[in-house]
Amino acid sequence: MTAETTVNHEEKAYALLKADAEKILKLIKVQMDHLTMPQCPLYEEVLDTQMFGLSREIDFAVRLGLIDSEVGKGILGELERELSLLHEAFTNNKK
Amino acid sequence: MTAETTVNHEEKAYALLKADAEKILKLIKVQMDHLTMPQCPLYEEVLDTQMFGLSREIDFAVRLGLIDSEVGKGILGELERELSLLHEAFTNNKK
Repeated sequence: MTAETTVNHEEKAYALLKADAEKILKLIKVQMDHLTMPQCPLYEEVLDTQMFGLSREIDFAVRLGLIDSEVGKGILGELERELSLLHEAFTNNKK
Repeated sequence: MTAETTVNHEEKAYALLKADAEKILKLIKVQMDHLTMPQCPLYEEVLDTQMFGLSREIDFAVRLGLIDSEVGKGILGELERELSLLHEAFTNNKK
């Protein structure tokens, strides 16, 4: 096992986090595409739970030194922007 | 960076997970020691949320190949046993 395995861990950690973030993004997009449908009341809770889970994974990867905390913030920040767009679309849709 | 860094990651991952599990164990013990006091209704939700967070960290560490899935199950299993002892103590305490 050489230094590559370490870089490998870092790359793999980042790839796993991005893949998990992608899954949440898909959940948001599905909701965005079905705005007119009656919203499943649990949807927000599902998203919140998934965001909490991802934030714990990111925090864990940062504490392990596998990713930089700014990179972690970037992944979460992007999702939070998408989430606020979704909330906005909901509110406008109700008017 | 040599292979040690990799073993270092594995050891560090395990140590972080055990430390996070220890925090949850302390939460359970505090509750166990104050059974007679009126239970804070949110307590169970706090414990559930913390258990969910830890399970996501463990799953992440397993997917990264930093810990063995059986080791991860062991950490969670121990906490789940403590949690069921706590629930039992609650129920008996109410009788």
